[in-house]
Amino acid sequence: MTSNGDAPSARIYMDYAAGAPVDSRVLEAMAPYFTEHFGNPASIHSSGREPRRAMEVARERVARLLNAKRKEEIVFTSGGTEGSNLALKGAAWRARKRGKHIVTSAIEHISVINIMKSLQKDGYEVTRVPVDGDGFVDVAEVEEVLRDDTTVVSIMHANNEIGTLQPIEEIAALLQPTEAVFHVDAVASAGKVPIDLGRVKVDLMTISSNDMYGPKGVGALYVRDGTSIEAVGQGGGQERGLRSGSENTPGIVGFGVAAEIAHTEMEAESERLVGLRDRLIRGVTEDVEDSLLNGHPTRRLPNNANFRFRYVEGESMLLNLDMAGISVSSSSPCTSKSLQPSHVLLACDVPTEEAQSALQFTLGRGNTEEEVDRVVEILPGIVKKLRAMSPFSPENIAEMRSTAGHRERHGRGGHQRS
Amino acid sequence: MTSNGDAPSARIYMDYAAGAPVDSRVLEAMAPYFTEHFGNPASIHSSGREPRRAMEVARERVARLLNAKRKEEIVFTSGGTEGSNLALKGAAWRARKRGKHIVTSAIEHISVINIMKSLQKDGYEVTRVPVDGDGFVDVAEVEEVLRDDTTVVSIMHANNEIGTLQPIEEIAALLQPTEAVFHVDAVASAGKVPIDLGRVKVDLMTISSNDMYGPKGVGALYVRDGTSIEAVGQGGGQERGLRSGSENTPGIVGFGVAAEIAHTEMEAESERLVGLRDRLIRGVTEDVEDSLLNGHPTRRLPNNANFRFRYVEGESMLLNLDMAGISVSSSSPCTSKSLQPSHVLLACDVPTEEAQSALQFTLGRGNTEEEVDRVVEILPGIVKKLRAMSPFSPENIAEMRSTAGHRERHGRGGHQRS
Repeated sequence: MTSNGDAPSARIYMDYAAGAPVDSRVLEAMAPYFTEHFGNPASIHSSGREPRRAMEVARERVARLLNAKRKEEIVFTSGGTEGSNLALKGAAWRARKRGKHIVTSAIEHISVINIMKSLQKDGYEVTRVPVDGDGFVDVAEVEEVLRDDTTVVSIMHANNEIGTLQPIEEIAALLQPTEAVFHVDAVASAGKVPIDLGRVKVDLMTISSNDMYGPKGVGALYVRDGTSIEAVGQGGGQERGLRSGSENTPGIVGFGVAAEIAHTEMEAESERLVGLRDRLIRGVTEDVEDSLLNGHPTRRLPNNANFRFRYVEGESMLLNLDMAGISVSSSSPCTSKSLQPSHVLLACDVPTEEAQSALQFTLGRGNTEEEVDRVVEILPGIVKKLRAMSPFSPENIAEMRSTAGHRERHGRGGHQRS
Repeated sequence: MTSNGDAPSARIYMDYAAGAPVDSRVLEAMAPYFTEHFGNPASIHSSGREPRRAMEVARERVARLLNAKRKEEIVFTSGGTEGSNLALKGAAWRARKRGKHIVTSAIEHISVINIMKSLQKDGYEVTRVPVDGDGFVDVAEVEEVLRDDTTVVSIMHANNEIGTLQPIEEIAALLQPTEAVFHVDAVASAGKVPIDLGRVKVDLMTISSNDMYGPKGVGALYVRDGTSIEAVGQGGGQERGLRSGSENTPGIVGFGVAAEIAHTEMEAESERLVGLRDRLIRGVTEDVEDSLLNGHPTRRLPNNANFRFRYVEGESMLLNLDMAGISVSSSSPCTSKSLQPSHVLLACDVPTEEAQSALQFTLGRGNTEEEVDRVVEILPGIVKKLRAMSPFSPENIAEMRSTAGHRERHGRGGHQRS
């Protein structure tokens, strides 16, 4: 409990993909590196020794979470966005003499989307493979678009909005005989579902600390031994020259502990979250008329539930839930300020109006059955209230038609129902 | 006091430029943003409100430290290295149609040096203006090398090794009528000496949090209103599109408090540090034969003292001081693993062998007169001991000459004395 009236602890927080609290064990482990072992890991005197040691322990822990062969395959970054920039530009630039064709999916995170746009401006050609209605990339489609000059393939592991888990293993197997570097954005999945890079031949993998209850401002890029990428930033040559800048020791130490906890507790916590998630999905789809689950019922992140509610806007629901003390997202948390419909839902062939009616719940360690039940109790009333005011609801459209004639509303209403 | 035998609190730590402890007031301010206000500042629900508010307060505080006109001129980064990458590439890329000539100094920080090398590989032409024996850039030299196609000028404020404070104000005045963007790396100086961007027309300024007792992994780039730069990384478009990636709220909050404390306490702390610095300089140069101060006696950072000690190696002194419980640097902290002589000292025309005999002391809030006196007490004995073993000392060279003839040692010894 806190003294602040709108403190998250008093709220029902179901937006863990947007931001997560740092685990108390993580924070405890970080503490000495702020005030006591604050030396520079690069220093050759004693003050550098403990920070250096702790950083390598963290590297080992992150490597273990991914079952990487060697801890040196882990390059610490300032977060997922920097990791994906390093991965994609680093690999594309390195291979530019061989080719400039890149393959990705239509439902990547905004960071990958914008990195790809930047590469296109620099003369790279980007092919975006489509997804099916549940958001799955078809492996045969990836195979089809591969070319001799394809140098990088980037497919996210779990979609950050609808939680769909891609067939990464099959894509890795497909790419194994090719020269293409395989990058996987695993920011949403690492620490939540098992990842085994000893078995699955991913070359580059982006992960982030806060998504597993570690501190913000830290992440890592896994770079498989033998995969050569160019540095994006220059400086003191830290992280084997791939990520310059004095190391954020407390952040890295915290990330290491967060990765270890995620690894140890994954099985139990995942089972618990799947229980909550499915309770939420059942409750919402049963109790709210005209509501649909976005994404696949089971092949999704344990903590993700994403719905669309016809005839209402996601943002209005979000604000009403907020007033009721419940935090959720209406679309990708990183772009929630924009009122654009989700590119992910559009790619899943959800009509524009329905895509704008999406609500995304990402559950976490703090959530309970009681909280899920409370959401299921509150949500139907909010949807009902908003529909009563909505110009898009069938009842209101019928009424408007009878009073004002059909006019241009006709086409729009028709589309909504398709 | 700590339970660990080699804990910094038991040591005399005079390597604050390499890494600094986080101020307890800073840490206290950060705490709630790890566990309570952990929401995403971009979220439109209540959980995003307090992180967003706190981040803007921090922006205001950092702006105040620099006397920036508007807080929006502050772009938060992951540290000094990222800041300088964004500044230099961002400005050079933006202006590439107008010209590709860049001016910098011979004594920049390793990050700026390596960013310049990267720009050169991309077809930019870089002119490095020399410095005098104290490390000062001659403003007339800058004027002389300016061309119509000069788009960026980057001169550091305080040198990180020898503390020399550059005539930034005069260079800014010189550049005012030109179209060149003026970048200043102020990582070593911000929070230590006054900076007034309301008066001095710097366009881009890189600063870092840990250098003012804030957390590691955070920094900022000041971007003057009207100065247009390109983003280096792509993503969710945070920080006005210039620095994508979910914001490190606790880090940014800590940085803000650190900037405020530095601002408030600068005058008193600077006076105190100048006292300690000058006591150290007097003690060392008086008590150690053949020792010289590198850089200017007074126009230097309040906390920096850098010496060279003929006939001994910096690293040997560093390790001996370390064994005596004193942490200092032998050269640039970020490159201390390399045994290269300092490029800064070489640029100041210090002979190679003497450049390798440098020791850098950077003082901080934790240091006392007693600590300075202890260093002055211990250092002469260490230097004496090492000189007795050194093949470079005049006595030993004379002895070796008499027993083994002149051979190739002749030339080397002669150079050392030049």
